[in-house]
Amino acid sequence: MTQSPVPASKMPSVPPRILLGPGPSNVDPRVLRAMMQPMIGYLDPDYIEIMNETVDMLKQVFQTSEGSAFPLSGTGSAGMEAGLSSLLEPGDTVVMCIYGFFCERMVDMAERAGANVVPLRADWGRAFPEEMLEAELKKHSNVKLVTAIQAETSTGVRQPLQGLSRLAQEHDTLFMVDAVTALGGEEMAFDAWNIDYAYAATQKCMACPPGLSPVAISPRALESIKSRKTKPVSWYLDLWLNANYWGFDRVYHHTGPVSMVLALREGLRLILQEGLENRYARHHRNAAALCAGLEALGLRMVVPAEHRLDQITLAWIPDGVDGDAVRNSLLRGHGIEIGRGLGEFAGKVWRVGLMGESSKPEYVLALLSAMEKILPEHGYEVASGVAVAAASESLARAGG
Amino acid sequence: MTQSPVPASKMPSVPPRILLGPGPSNVDPRVLRAMMQPMIGYLDPDYIEIMNETVDMLKQVFQTSEGSAFPLSGTGSAGMEAGLSSLLEPGDTVVMCIYGFFCERMVDMAERAGANVVPLRADWGRAFPEEMLEAELKKHSNVKLVTAIQAETSTGVRQPLQGLSRLAQEHDTLFMVDAVTALGGEEMAFDAWNIDYAYAATQKCMACPPGLSPVAISPRALESIKSRKTKPVSWYLDLWLNANYWGFDRVYHHTGPVSMVLALREGLRLILQEGLENRYARHHRNAAALCAGLEALGLRMVVPAEHRLDQITLAWIPDGVDGDAVRNSLLRGHGIEIGRGLGEFAGKVWRVGLMGESSKPEYVLALLSAMEKILPEHGYEVASGVAVAAASESLARAGG
Repeated sequence: MTQSPVPASKMPSVPPRILLGPGPSNVDPRVLRAMMQPMIGYLDPDYIEIMNETVDMLKQVFQTSEGSAFPLSGTGSAGMEAGLSSLLEPGDTVVMCIYGFFCERMVDMAERAGANVVPLRADWGRAFPEEMLEAELKKHSNVKLVTAIQAETSTGVRQPLQGLSRLAQEHDTLFMVDAVTALGGEEMAFDAWNIDYAYAATQKCMACPPGLSPVAISPRALESIKSRKTKPVSWYLDLWLNANYWGFDRVYHHTGPVSMVLALREGLRLILQEGLENRYARHHRNAAALCAGLEALGLRMVVPAEHRLDQITLAWIPDGVDGDAVRNSLLRGHGIEIGRGLGEFAGKVWRVGLMGESSKPEYVLALLSAMEKILPEHGYEVASGVAVAAASESLARAGG
Repeated sequence: MTQSPVPASKMPSVPPRILLGPGPSNVDPRVLRAMMQPMIGYLDPDYIEIMNETVDMLKQVFQTSEGSAFPLSGTGSAGMEAGLSSLLEPGDTVVMCIYGFFCERMVDMAERAGANVVPLRADWGRAFPEEMLEAELKKHSNVKLVTAIQAETSTGVRQPLQGLSRLAQEHDTLFMVDAVTALGGEEMAFDAWNIDYAYAATQKCMACPPGLSPVAISPRALESIKSRKTKPVSWYLDLWLNANYWGFDRVYHHTGPVSMVLALREGLRLILQEGLENRYARHHRNAAALCAGLEALGLRMVVPAEHRLDQITLAWIPDGVDGDAVRNSLLRGHGIEIGRGLGEFAGKVWRVGLMGESSKPEYVLALLSAMEKILPEHGYEVASGVAVAAASESLARAGG
């Protein structure tokens, strides 16, 4: 056996941060405390009760009474792959609305599952045009699934879902929605919008640590999985097996991630205590203040106002400014994290997230105040105080 | 929007338990405290440092200097599927040594990945006979992978690995090992035993909550994945993508489960502070005391002493005793969880885990003392005090 140095006994500390990137966001202290609770067996009757409470609250947040809802034991990408690999059999046709980095990830996963992928690529930073989907669906007679993303984290676009859903219904296909950045901060009406499968993540508007992917699934989609001719390529992410573990027979599937589920339960309790409408309004109010402040700095927004997300805001980096250097100054000098661009936006945009526990007026003001100080050091002149004033005024107008 | 009842503001509590089932085991309070730390971004330079420390310590526990080691963002089954779906392409032949419930799960997963599966089924409760593998490998010229489980949680068998590894080498196949129940409580010499891929879980001998699957992978196995002709069926569990995120280029893959990684780092620090040899000796000492006590109760062990695991001990339920009723009395009357049988052992055995933080002399004595009280109530007479005395004597002999 190799001799190894013994680690110091004092636990190394994690520096405090204001997390205004694309996630993880700050976690409510009550959620952190929930994880401190003692471990319990995943078949313990008292844990089954915790699972039931979690499912009940998750259904309220997804606004579904007909569907099943439960968390998968993986991050948001696990929810994405669970849907594609469980709903699609080799050779099935899936039409994918593509307008950002995470839409492209769906293409990769669906191809790995052996599906016949029809990608419809539209402009980044704009809502996906419904007529593109309409025209494509007319060309096929056997589309199994249509996919879309409610809140494209890479572009900052809020995608209207009801038009796409109507088209999917007219053509008798299943409709799958990525709600990773949306759930808990933006309305998600699973039943009313006729969604068949939606998946989210805990570390954004749900104010929990990353590690679980809450999902909702319609009876029709479950029936479709049940009647597959082949097993899904993934056992771990098989939605039928996971639904049985969580919902119907409590059939042992895998060892549930107990501490994460305790965190999620507390996060859900916080969401329902605040109230869904209040929570959406808070996200909207703080995002509006952020935009007012960024525009007062002279920065241009990437997404037109009518399709701009409240959860994540994209601003173009001004000419001549080193975006990563500014991000680094924010992190090192002010303890504030913001995000960088992905894919075709890499190096061109900043992404500012105001999600869950991170969506607070004081964080908006802290960021803008820091930007007023930092930007001139990076060659971009701004008048001191203008951004904070504009944001404050926006907050005051909204009564926040 | 539906009107929903608002949850009470006081956090519901989780009852304290002595967890002596097949996992999760009790979690060290220092590990729970590690999860209370504030959230940090998964691309933050300070988090990258935490990742580096985790990798360094994990390599020491796997005893690998040549291989890569990192945690996957899922439970132990995710580690199982990551190996099978990344190492096997459709049509590849895998020879699987099968001697328990979790071995059969591997068959299901490998079939989903499209592999040509050759299952070698041997008796449950006994070590797998090397000659069976030897005879089978002689029949094939193109075996890609051989699989085995170091500690079969469903049967309580410790499988010697070096003979199987030698055969795999002689036939130029990759060798994959399930170390879920073993790692941190039983020696795992990844390099010395010529293992190509091993995976574990955090909730057993690592004394952390469930939710991560620490894995180790050899350069040869990584090379084999890199030169695949097809992409692995799973994107989320693609070992190449995960290895790049953790090890080489820090290429963004998925949002790391930060709190679970903080827990794992603290769990690894605890393991190395105790020392690997000391830790294995502790598991052995406490298991020996448990067996002495159970045998003093007149119970028969399932596994012969030479292949008995220290991590999980199987005893036959005596004739006429309702095994689940006894388990329920232990849980409700004494706060002690033990496990039930799986697969062909369902209803026939009790499974007692002594893993990580749960492997303590006081828990052994608490369980035996409770059994002395409970068994007579369930129609099985025992002389009071004999089991506790036998275990105490065993502990005293071992100097524990």
